[in-house]
Amino acid sequence: METLTKTDQLTSKFQFVRRRTEVICSNLEVEDTVIQPVEFVSPPKWHLAHTTWFFEEFVLTKYNPDYKVFNPEYSYYFNSYYNNVGSRVLRPNRGLMTRPKLQDVLDYRLYVTEQLSDFLASEDLSDEQKEVIEIGIQHEQQHQELLHYDIKYIFGHQPAFPTLENAPSLKDELKTEKFLSFEEGVYEIGHQGDDFCFDNELGRHKVYLHDFVISNRLVTNSEYIEFIEAGGYSNFNLWHADGWEFINSNALNAPMYWHQFNGQWHHYTLSGFQTVNPNAPVSHVSFYEASAYANLKGLRLPTEFEWEVASSKLNYGQLWEWTNSAYLPYPNFKTADGALGEYNGKFMVNTMVLRGASIATSVNHSRPTYRNFFAPNDRWQFAGIRLAK
Amino acid sequence: METLTKTDQLTSKFQFVRRRTEVICSNLEVEDTVIQPVEFVSPPKWHLAHTTWFFEEFVLTKYNPDYKVFNPEYSYYFNSYYNNVGSRVLRPNRGLMTRPKLQDVLDYRLYVTEQLSDFLASEDLSDEQKEVIEIGIQHEQQHQELLHYDIKYIFGHQPAFPTLENAPSLKDELKTEKFLSFEEGVYEIGHQGDDFCFDNELGRHKVYLHDFVISNRLVTNSEYIEFIEAGGYSNFNLWHADGWEFINSNALNAPMYWHQFNGQWHHYTLSGFQTVNPNAPVSHVSFYEASAYANLKGLRLPTEFEWEVASSKLNYGQLWEWTNSAYLPYPNFKTADGALGEYNGKFMVNTMVLRGASIATSVNHSRPTYRNFFAPNDRWQFAGIRLAK
Amino acid sequence: METLTKTDQLTSKFQFVRRRTEVICSNLEVEDTVIQPVEFVSPPKWHLAHTTWFFEEFVLTKYNPDYKVFNPEYSYYFNSYYNNVGSRVLRPNRGLMTRPKLQDVLDYRLYVTEQLSDFLASEDLSDEQKEVIEIGIQHEQQHQELLHYDIKYIFGHQPAFPTLENAPSLKDELKTEKFLSFEEGVYEIGHQGDDFCFDNELGRHKVYLHDFVISNRLVTNSEYIEFIEAGGYSNFNLWHADGWEFINSNALNAPMYWHQFNGQWHHYTLSGFQTVNPNAPVSHVSFYEASAYANLKGLRLPTEFEWEVASSKLNYGQLWEWTNSAYLPYPNFKTADGALGEYNGKFMVNTMVLRGASIATSVNHSRPTYRNFFAPNDRWQFAGIRLAK
Amino acid sequence: METLTKTDQLTSKFQFVRRRTEVICSNLEVEDTVIQPVEFVSPPKWHLAHTTWFFEEFVLTKYNPDYKVFNPEYSYYFNSYYNNVGSRVLRPNRGLMTRPKLQDVLDYRLYVTEQLSDFLASEDLSDEQKEVIEIGIQHEQQHQELLHYDIKYIFGHQPAFPTLENAPSLKDELKTEKFLSFEEGVYEIGHQGDDFCFDNELGRHKVYLHDFVISNRLVTNSEYIEFIEAGGYSNFNLWHADGWEFINSNALNAPMYWHQFNGQWHHYTLSGFQTVNPNAPVSHVSFYEASAYANLKGLRLPTEFEWEVASSKLNYGQLWEWTNSAYLPYPNFKTADGALGEYNGKFMVNTMVLRGASIATSVNHSRPTYRNFFAPNDRWQFAGIRLAK
Repeated sequence: METLTKTDQLTSKFQFVRRRTEVICSNLEVEDTVIQPVEFVSPPKWHLAHTTWFFEEFVLTKYNPDYKVFNPEYSYYFNSYYNNVGSRVLRPNRGLMTRPKLQDVLDYRLYVTEQLSDFLASEDLSDEQKEVIEIGIQHEQQHQELLHYDIKYIFGHQPAFPTLENAPSLKDELKTEKFLSFEEGVYEIGHQGDDFCFDNELGRHKVYLHDFVISNRLVTNSEYIEFIEAGGYSNFNLWHADGWEFINSNALNAPMYWHQFNGQWHHYTLSGFQTVNPNAPVSHVSFYEASAYANLKGLRLPTEFEWEVASSKLNYGQLWEWTNSAYLPYPNFKTADGALGEYNGKFMVNTMVLRGASIATSVNHSRPTYRNFFAPNDRWQFAGIRLAK
Repeated sequence: METLTKTDQLTSKFQFVRRRTEVICSNLEVEDTVIQPVEFVSPPKWHLAHTTWFFEEFVLTKYNPDYKVFNPEYSYYFNSYYNNVGSRVLRPNRGLMTRPKLQDVLDYRLYVTEQLSDFLASEDLSDEQKEVIEIGIQHEQQHQELLHYDIKYIFGHQPAFPTLENAPSLKDELKTEKFLSFEEGVYEIGHQGDDFCFDNELGRHKVYLHDFVISNRLVTNSEYIEFIEAGGYSNFNLWHADGWEFINSNALNAPMYWHQFNGQWHHYTLSGFQTVNPNAPVSHVSFYEASAYANLKGLRLPTEFEWEVASSKLNYGQLWEWTNSAYLPYPNFKTADGALGEYNGKFMVNTMVLRGASIATSVNHSRPTYRNFFAPNDRWQFAGIRLAK
Repeated sequence: METLTKTDQLTSKFQFVRRRTEVICSNLEVEDTVIQPVEFVSPPKWHLAHTTWFFEEFVLTKYNPDYKVFNPEYSYYFNSYYNNVGSRVLRPNRGLMTRPKLQDVLDYRLYVTEQLSDFLASEDLSDEQKEVIEIGIQHEQQHQELLHYDIKYIFGHQPAFPTLENAPSLKDELKTEKFLSFEEGVYEIGHQGDDFCFDNELGRHKVYLHDFVISNRLVTNSEYIEFIEAGGYSNFNLWHADGWEFINSNALNAPMYWHQFNGQWHHYTLSGFQTVNPNAPVSHVSFYEASAYANLKGLRLPTEFEWEVASSKLNYGQLWEWTNSAYLPYPNFKTADGALGEYNGKFMVNTMVLRGASIATSVNHSRPTYRNFFAPNDRWQFAGIRLAK
Repeated sequence: METLTKTDQLTSKFQFVRRRTEVICSNLEVEDTVIQPVEFVSPPKWHLAHTTWFFEEFVLTKYNPDYKVFNPEYSYYFNSYYNNVGSRVLRPNRGLMTRPKLQDVLDYRLYVTEQLSDFLASEDLSDEQKEVIEIGIQHEQQHQELLHYDIKYIFGHQPAFPTLENAPSLKDELKTEKFLSFEEGVYEIGHQGDDFCFDNELGRHKVYLHDFVISNRLVTNSEYIEFIEAGGYSNFNLWHADGWEFINSNALNAPMYWHQFNGQWHHYTLSGFQTVNPNAPVSHVSFYEASAYANLKGLRLPTEFEWEVASSKLNYGQLWEWTNSAYLPYPNFKTADGALGEYNGKFMVNTMVLRGASIATSVNHSRPTYRNFFAPNDRWQFAGIRLAK
């Protein structure tokens, strides 16, 4: 009984998530879905296909002997970094594929969604099968968030500056900043319970934290403008050596998408050019900028453990929040077997952890133990700054 | 009378050329028109718009006071290298512009074609005006040829290898090679007569040529395969120092688009993958490869002057033919005034002259005095090898 | 009394360290001291001068009003990364300075050593002064170790493969590997006591460690050859994504300085080319290689905290040992005021911690709390692998 | 008799040239002879050895069966680009070789000079042998000139700006500029007579020249400063497309070695920093700058043929003079057999011809038919501008 119910829920969740990806892309022109302006940005058409391939490769092909692949070449086209699933189009070449065209990709989506819905309806699914489908759903939700980043990058780096209908937008932060205090001691960190989580959240374990305080809100645009005006971008004492090199070799003096004209800071948003809202949280900053900002204030970024311990007292969900924790395995971290084992562990070097969630994060996708990660110079994701001490 | 007739001819030529560009693109999908896979390849959508902008900027805006520009931003978007016409989207960024979308560009074309047709119909055009329109037509014909190169590059560098309907194709070369002899003496070089030509062909002048012989046909694929099999790509004695560096740093061992599998050479053509036709002329070779091939044979490439003198005795029109002449100004070369003066002279360094015409060259666009030019490492244009001594 | 004694000790230590730097370089030819073969390797002449400049700038110029600088331009020439001490020769340009010549640098050393010895003799030094001198000594000891790395790089990357007399060499590791066990619990980490340490070791604090075991010895060359022969360098499942990219784009298949010929692995050592000693510890591996090796074994690298807790039970001193800890600030980390504050904190991103000491580490320079750090792709330092679980 | 005399002359010439190379280097410190600050600049120590290797490889080893090579590894170390003489240290790695040290190279020089002197004394040399020795002498004279360029580069790109004793210096140009006229007609070009010349000067042949005028002197520094002050470096209409890209991507606004301070142009010379002498010829300009300067004046650079025809009426010898001729083979150009055949032909693409001679050119090394060549962006050689029309 309960299993049936859970399968029904899974079906409904699956179909909802599939539909949502299409809705996000529904306001794009065909032309918008093709290009890869820079290596780390994938064409929206590729996201639509890759998330589909995931279900085809890891569920239908694997578990359904009657399944007929939509197009045998798509496995080569739309595999991303799963070295264990054979050869693949290299990441910088995603933008070379004008074909299959968008309509073919949408047909592919429809086909796989229907086939997987049938698969969900017709069988007693094993726990393993349900788990892989759950991973596929989570995977597609991650790509929904990436779609927002990538569409914004594509739109924000061309002279026509197009806009996206129904794009999510940032609210003002709390007016009054307060620092919440937490006591020294041993805390438990990591996922518990039966809900879904990624392998990198597992291995619930103890950490010892010293006394700390953490802000009740994110740094705002007006505060960040003060940092700019105080010469933050030209005072090397505030910066990591790599950060100083990064902002200078790229001639950066403001967050990504910010442009100064007529004596005022404007920024491109998915709803168009706007003057910067002083009360909204500053976004599109790198770890280096977040860290330099904290240094100017005589404060620091929280560790991911402090953040997790404090999370129940924090509002979050506007922007991913840079921590000063490197993305490293928890004690007893184990990668999953097979191709899915490539998911997380291989990125555990040269990246920093972000906690929380952003306005582009799918509903029910965030949780206090979720460990997001980006390279310290990444700026196109929706990321902001919370201070601690 | 005669002027009226000539205007009619100009109108008909103009409309024919405009239509032909659209026909070339008519078998593309929207997705194919957007991307710029490498800096020297422009998106087809950009070609469609840029050739239109040329007429708008240099004819309608300049000579028709009543003309209303289609969209004032397009001048910025679709200017190519005319520094004298204000700022512009830099060449490597053409592939970032998903907007204006293809349909908007086609509307732009329609609008400018109609407006210019009206302009041609309604006025007594001055010679200057007719000349600029003629340049615009020639300019668009050049872009028609570039469109073939760029579409081939886009299609030939993605895993699906799409094909283009009605693409032109190469015929077999003459079976029997003969070397035609020409006598030492003073020859006249350069354009004469009233027909259109570019500024770089003008300044008809004398050159002294020594005895030479020149082949009656191009080098064929089977001959080029012999060069490959004789170790041509690994014998540095055959190569210019820069050429040796070029083939080694790019790991080249065959012309562009050639792939060896199942023990045979295949190549991508606009009509799809084919085994290489032994009797067709070898194409997509760089100047370096053309020159190394000639060296192996104990022969050389002709100079552009030898080629021009011999041209009346040559069949040509399959491929542009590399010469061993650097692209340099003729005596008394003068650049045109204003923005159009940027057209040719600024490229007269680091490039080599090609003579003849290719299967992608527009009808009536080739002539014996036409000086085409590419960098010695360019391979995506339709270029082959004719030998001399 | 005690202060005097301590000043005497400081003087003797200072002079000993100064002398030792010169001894290390005494077997170099003038030619060897000039070049900078790659950005991260500094010319030995530069090390000789820079360590001298440190004492001149931070002690003599600052505290001795009568001090006359040896040459006012040297501050510009030999500052390294201390942005707070004015402009400086950029790191990649150290190898451009053929002047001042080696003899001038040795004269500079002599002058500063004498002046600082006088300063030590003549005055009641304040604690601050003594501390800065102590930092200068430690700083010069760090450069002594770097000198070994850099000389080895210079000698090991030229066809004549010169050797260095009296170079330190690696001993065999213990024959029998044993894994030492440590119990879960709260441990104290960081420096304590009055002895010298760097700012990054301070802030003694508690960490919670889970049960772990750690090997009693380093991985040997013979074990590492097994990894190579088992296809370690071609199995992406063992590697971080960045590591896989690193070894492939650099075509690596063995540690730095290893060459295979006549069916055997040889390596360049400061004593010349040798067949690889199977029982000595493997050296000159990157973090990526260390980590991939551990993965093949189903083990992992220790964290720096595990290492520190276990250190009293470990033999160490052959090679620095990669840990799986990113180099991050301890709780309550504070950078020193002024220029010396730039010393450590600015590198706390994109680097990994190494613990222990190497055969090139100066006597009395290693301690259980010492936090060395390098980028994960660095291989020229003397670094090896210890396993944990 | 005559042959003996000629051998005596050859011996004396040989020894004079060998000595002169050593004299040029005699004012260098050991440190100055080792580094390679940029790929196109070779260490002076390498020049000393390479010119020696040339005689050893192409004369002694080849023609003297009793000759015992000084060190068998030197052939590998000091071969430059003669692919036909086996493997070699790649050009960018010349600066890695701290060994053999300078003294060893000087011993090598002495040994080969003595051995070759003996060879010259003891035998009836064949014409072929004499010719190869003559080539070796000319080759060493070319390297004497390169030594001046490279020493200047090494000294002029380090903060101490050392000077070279007895360095050659530029005289003032003629006060009054006059343009000499030459008549249209057929002229003979290329070397004639029995004196030595390089293969690229051979194949005396006819060219047809149109009327031209050519200046009696080089462009002076004061004239060039006018070009700078007239905005020459920011007016793209004056530049080749590649030249515009070159000056902008390198942020150039003056010749190499020029620095503006205190409102005046200074430049580094081998005799030290000086204010720029207004009446001396402008030097260290690229072809692009020479060409842009001519464009501003409404003039052009001469072709190499015009220059050769006019040469008997020109003073020259201050600086090599950029022509607007690409470096291409003369009709009937034939490369020499064997390794020496690599000398010239392989550079006949992407380079421009310079004619004349400079103050660093060896005595009796210049002649009206001598074809020097450099890439259009090279600026470290001693090159200036002569105008024509």
